Amino acid sequence: MKRPSGRAADQLRPIRITRGYTKHAEGSVLVEFGDTQVICTVSVESGVPRFLKGKGQGWLTAEYGMLPRATGERTQREASRGKQGGRTLEIQRLIGRSLRAALDMSKLGENTLYVDCDVIQADGGTRTASITGAMVALVDALAVMKKRGALKGEPLKQMIAAVSVGMYQGEAVLDLDYPEDSAAETDLNVVMTSQGGFIEVQGTAEGEPFQPEQLNAMLLLARQGLQQLFEAQQAALHND
Amino acid sequence: MKRPSGRAADQLRPIRITRGYTKHAEGSVLVEFGDTQVICTVSVESGVPRFLKGKGQGWLTAEYGMLPRATGERTQREASRGKQGGRTLEIQRLIGRSLRAALDMSKLGENTLYVDCDVIQADGGTRTASITGAMVALVDALAVMKKRGALKGEPLKQMIAAVSVGMYQGEAVLDLDYPEDSAAETDLNVVMTSQGGFIEVQGTAEGEPFQPEQLNAMLLLARQGLQQLFEAQQAALHND
Amino acid sequence: MKRPSGRAADQLRPIRITRGYTKHAEGSVLVEFGDTQVICTVSVESGVPRFLKGKGQGWLTAEYGMLPRATGERTQREASRGKQGGRTLEIQRLIGRSLRAALDMSKLGENTLYVDCDVIQADGGTRTASITGAMVALVDALAVMKKRGALKGEPLKQMIAAVSVGMYQGEAVLDLDYPEDSAAETDLNVVMTSQGGFIEVQGTAEGEPFQPEQLNAMLLLARQGLQQLFEAQQAALHND
Amino acid sequence: MKRPSGRAADQLRPIRITRGYTKHAEGSVLVEFGDTQVICTVSVESGVPRFLKGKGQGWLTAEYGMLPRATGERTQREASRGKQGGRTLEIQRLIGRSLRAALDMSKLGENTLYVDCDVIQADGGTRTASITGAMVALVDALAVMKKRGALKGEPLKQMIAAVSVGMYQGEAVLDLDYPEDSAAETDLNVVMTSQGGFIEVQGTAEGEPFQPEQLNAMLLLARQGLQQLFEAQQAALHND
Amino acid sequence: MKRPSGRAADQLRPIRITRGYTKHAEGSVLVEFGDTQVICTVSVESGVPRFLKGKGQGWLTAEYGMLPRATGERTQREASRGKQGGRTLEIQRLIGRSLRAALDMSKLGENTLYVDCDVIQADGGTRTASITGAMVALVDALAVMKKRGALKGEPLKQMIAAVSVGMYQGEAVLDLDYPEDSAAETDLNVVMTSQGGFIEVQGTAEGEPFQPEQLNAMLLLARQGLQQLFEAQQAALHND
Amino acid sequence: MKRPSGRAADQLRPIRITRGYTKHAEGSVLVEFGDTQVICTVSVESGVPRFLKGKGQGWLTAEYGMLPRATGERTQREASRGKQGGRTLEIQRLIGRSLRAALDMSKLGENTLYVDCDVIQADGGTRTASITGAMVALVDALAVMKKRGALKGEPLKQMIAAVSVGMYQGEAVLDLDYPEDSAAETDLNVVMTSQGGFIEVQGTAEGEPFQPEQLNAMLLLARQGLQQLFEAQQAALHND
Repeated sequence: MKRPSGRAADQLRPIRITRGYTKHAEGSVLVEFGDTQVICTVSVESGVPRFLKGKGQGWLTAEYGMLPRATGERTQREASRGKQGGRTLEIQRLIGRSLRAALDMSKLGENTLYVDCDVIQADGGTRTASITGAMVALVDALAVMKKRGALKGEPLKQMIAAVSVGMYQGEAVLDLDYPEDSAAETDLNVVMTSQGGFIEVQGTAEGEPFQPEQLNAMLLLARQGLQQLFEAQQAALHND
Repeated sequence: MKRPSGRAADQLRPIRITRGYTKHAEGSVLVEFGDTQVICTVSVESGVPRFLKGKGQGWLTAEYGMLPRATGERTQREASRGKQGGRTLEIQRLIGRSLRAALDMSKLGENTLYVDCDVIQADGGTRTASITGAMVALVDALAVMKKRGALKGEPLKQMIAAVSVGMYQGEAVLDLDYPEDSAAETDLNVVMTSQGGFIEVQGTAEGEPFQPEQLNAMLLLARQGLQQLFEAQQAALHND
Repeated sequence: MKRPSGRAADQLRPIRITRGYTKHAEGSVLVEFGDTQVICTVSVESGVPRFLKGKGQGWLTAEYGMLPRATGERTQREASRGKQGGRTLEIQRLIGRSLRAALDMSKLGENTLYVDCDVIQADGGTRTASITGAMVALVDALAVMKKRGALKGEPLKQMIAAVSVGMYQGEAVLDLDYPEDSAAETDLNVVMTSQGGFIEVQGTAEGEPFQPEQLNAMLLLARQGLQQLFEAQQAALHND
Repeated sequence: MKRPSGRAADQLRPIRITRGYTKHAEGSVLVEFGDTQVICTVSVESGVPRFLKGKGQGWLTAEYGMLPRATGERTQREASRGKQGGRTLEIQRLIGRSLRAALDMSKLGENTLYVDCDVIQADGGTRTASITGAMVALVDALAVMKKRGALKGEPLKQMIAAVSVGMYQGEAVLDLDYPEDSAAETDLNVVMTSQGGFIEVQGTAEGEPFQPEQLNAMLLLARQGLQQLFEAQQAALHND
Repeated sequence: MKRPSGRAADQLRPIRITRGYTKHAEGSVLVEFGDTQVICTVSVESGVPRFLKGKGQGWLTAEYGMLPRATGERTQREASRGKQGGRTLEIQRLIGRSLRAALDMSKLGENTLYVDCDVIQADGGTRTASITGAMVALVDALAVMKKRGALKGEPLKQMIAAVSVGMYQGEAVLDLDYPEDSAAETDLNVVMTSQGGFIEVQGTAEGEPFQPEQLNAMLLLARQGLQQLFEAQQAALHND
Repeated sequence: MKRPSGRAADQLRPIRITRGYTKHAEGSVLVEFGDTQVICTVSVESGVPRFLKGKGQGWLTAEYGMLPRATGERTQREASRGKQGGRTLEIQRLIGRSLRAALDMSKLGENTLYVDCDVIQADGGTRTASITGAMVALVDALAVMKKRGALKGEPLKQMIAAVSVGMYQGEAVLDLDYPEDSAAETDLNVVMTSQGGFIEVQGTAEGEPFQPEQLNAMLLLARQGLQQLFEAQQAALHND
């Protein structure tokens, strides 16, 4: 088997995490998984959604978007279409759930963290890049909150990262780019904690069903890739 | 461990699949997983979406809804809110992908199958009940198409069914009802073919992350439950 | 004259009112006028709309919907179209006005009753079946409120029911089904109280204008049919 | 009984119908029922809605609106709210149905008539004034079409007019203005042809139910008032 | 050069400002610039938008609309389209900014003035007519507020008026009607105070770019025209 | 006078124009006016809007957006709000009009150019930066079209650029950043051709009205700044 990208089956694309990418947000990261580029910002606002009022805890919510020409063919701007599509809503719900798993909400105070992941250039894996990059922006935003005295303890429970794996010509491969994703038989997104527990596992057979042993092979590969992503997050965070 | 429902860990709720539930649709099923009740209809229309025009194949698309008081507290009617929520879109995309895996689209002719799953009463597992019940309605609709001479061969490749599993008090349990789902640490939806391949695997940690061995235990339980669901589908289909 | 349905001019379709149809709502009824089937639920929520705040009275509001394949041809789901159509709004306004006439709002406390009428199968007369069935669900919901101590006296002033009549081949006929409705020259919906007063009278000439004496003949027929509907309501309510 | 307006029970408000009110439309009328003022235009466009394509006939459709400060308190502009309210949709459906009854669609050619009724000042009876005024604008538009050679015969079958009647302090009164409408026990809108047949009869009990003999009294009064409205239409049409 | 309208280059169309045009609004004006007719109402409501709460000042906001057949060809009703177009939003933002320049908000009390400009008949220059007419309605509304004791001093700082100018066949011309506007090379809208300062200057090259000296020629012409418009406003205001 | 930015009155912020910023679009530029950063892409699609069909010419249309945290405080995402705001529509209409002035549409063939300007970081002048940067992306997109043989001659008539000027403490200043814009008495956006003609001039008094001589001073300053912007465009275009 030869991957379209020429990478080894267990090889990530070059990963880059650039902190402080824009100046206004409490946390702002440009994350790159190869040619996939996502700006992830974390904004802090005081107050919580209605269903949490008066419970003394905080909240995190996420939104996801793509520039119209982030893709090979221009896609219609969701703001002018008048609504977000199903794919967008699905992805932003995943990002939100994943990052909430990083936090102890009771330590946040009655604040809301808005995570915005905007894809500047898409080449497959935008949701996994978003989660991995936004996690770093989240750490930066918590540091700003700490300085402001807005926290009630340490909310960070664990780091979170995400990667995609797939079955390509019968073999498990790591971190699919767009041509690989289009050709893969199965696409699996894995969100994990730095301690190795799963937060989300979402596998979809694009053509042929996948077998339990294939699922296990993909999960193993994902865990290896995620180890490198956790390291890339740490490297970025220690690079001030 | 004692499940809130009193069921054994590997015990499904009573499953009922009633064909011919309403009179207009080509396929119409009431599916019940315990107190969860969903009306699944399949409607046949000639023509296909624009992106398939002229390719000589058919299409299947799904929509999902809940009556406002299908739930313990009334939820706002999506038609009067002016849009479908993210959860709705996520579920109907899942139903559509799952059922498309049952079909060879090139045998459908240029027809579109509209699958409508409307939850009359909700008690957990509405998406898995929807897929399992709509699969039976789909078989009935194909039979109607065959009689009308609208098919170009046999489009049915395999049966599809779905079930949820979860981790409850550290143990894997099958087919969660609403109180169990609310209390579970992990929720996993499994869509499978009658040959035993996975179509979708979607697991979410609600609180604690889940471990690879827990995932395997849940998948095993799901496969056992799905075996019974495939039998229930066959029983319903042979009951004319 | 021979009606398409073969019924006598003054003959209702078989009427069935099934209470306790779903388990969550305070009142829940399946009403059937022949093949027309509507699920009517009444939900109680504390609080009233803004324009009634602090006036010490309650409110009742209604919403109406149809499953996409309740009809002979699939109609687009209003939730995915992004708005309710004019016909839907017209019907739900009629249901709300009609049922409010049954109540003394000052006895409800500051509570709102949400009436949801969802058509499972349509064969003409969905709005009149909705009103007739929801009236029974309303009585059940008031009983629940009474048990909860939420009422400030007896809010039920009178029973309400509704029926359609029409001119078919020059003769007045009762309770039109869909083929009759499509062929009728005039369609008249009558909402009445159990004491015989009119709440709503809505007549529309579909083709030829109708004459005052035809209107009177139709109203007479409606009053006879409504007598039977009030009896069917009572029978259902005494059947515990 | 003394009406708030001081009028006799069977007395219309001063009626004024001004043709050629604005310059662009094929038919353009300002209709005044006392202080109620509505601009009614009829616009001709070639082509018909999809469901009529190729059937060789025409169509008429109506839209209704109110300037935000046509009313005593400003109402929110529907264009900025992003949707038309239920009352608006109900009224414009009534106007459309009523005016279609005036026409033989097969004589219109494949043209669509757009009737726009915009309330400049509201004082009760805006829907009946709209129908009565738009009927005159429709005649003018047909004359323009005739000159252009766009007709396939004479489409005008009969004149249509509308008036409201009500029960006020137990007595039937004609053509309610806003204070009377607010105080009336029953409100009845009657749309009639110049030959005396009913097109629409819509009666609503605002408080107490109304009795059959009250309905008859109101209908009688309506017929008398409509006679005068048909004369006012003719007077306007003969005044070139 | 000969203008399509036959007017001299520096000649306004006949200007008419009719106060008290409708009866409900605190200020209500029909303004006519030739065949362009706009109803301008000013409505007073207590309370201010959220961003001004508690600041002890008032606010003014404007909305703009056109009747569907105000134009030569019918335009779709924005209320039924479900949103206001970009042109509408642009114009109503301009009207609001312009009229706010007339007021000292701190003298208004916590009240909001809603300016509604609805075009009954369009023949070019609807935005400038709207501003000029609404200014007069605003003065009337302030007088009503004063009588009600709702003001905290004199809010009126200065009168505001607006006019369009353009380059037509290389020459500057004043107050373009629709045929002139369509043929002009440049279109410039000028909003000015009665003391001669500019509030807004918006020039657009429709075909050829315009030169600085052309801009100056147009501005000079605008100032002359505005002088007459300020006089027309005063004449209307002194005509009780 | 001392500008908040410390710049001289006639001094632009550092201007950077980076071509080929993302890989998919036919033209893709990152433009920076100081801390204001905008990604401008130009996408080519065959076909034209309905109103141009069959006229043998092309079209250019523009859309504008801001990442939610491009600003000091997070603004709500327009895609999730369900509509574009008035400011957004106003700006994208301006960008579209301005860039269409650069082109001879008859030479484009029946193609549509979609210009997307997405603000990554905002610090004042986003609309002028968008126009200036998108002009360069447009040149690149035309070169791609030329290579593809999609043009019918040379569509580029002239270069277009834009800059803002304002009155700050009574003095004209060039290229306002956000703190200056907030404090300025007048804000004027000028769009010009490389030959020195005006395409758009939009001046707004934020507080005090501005005088004709102030307008002239601002326009003079704008022309000087625009000269430098045209040079920056050329430098970028010659830097391959």
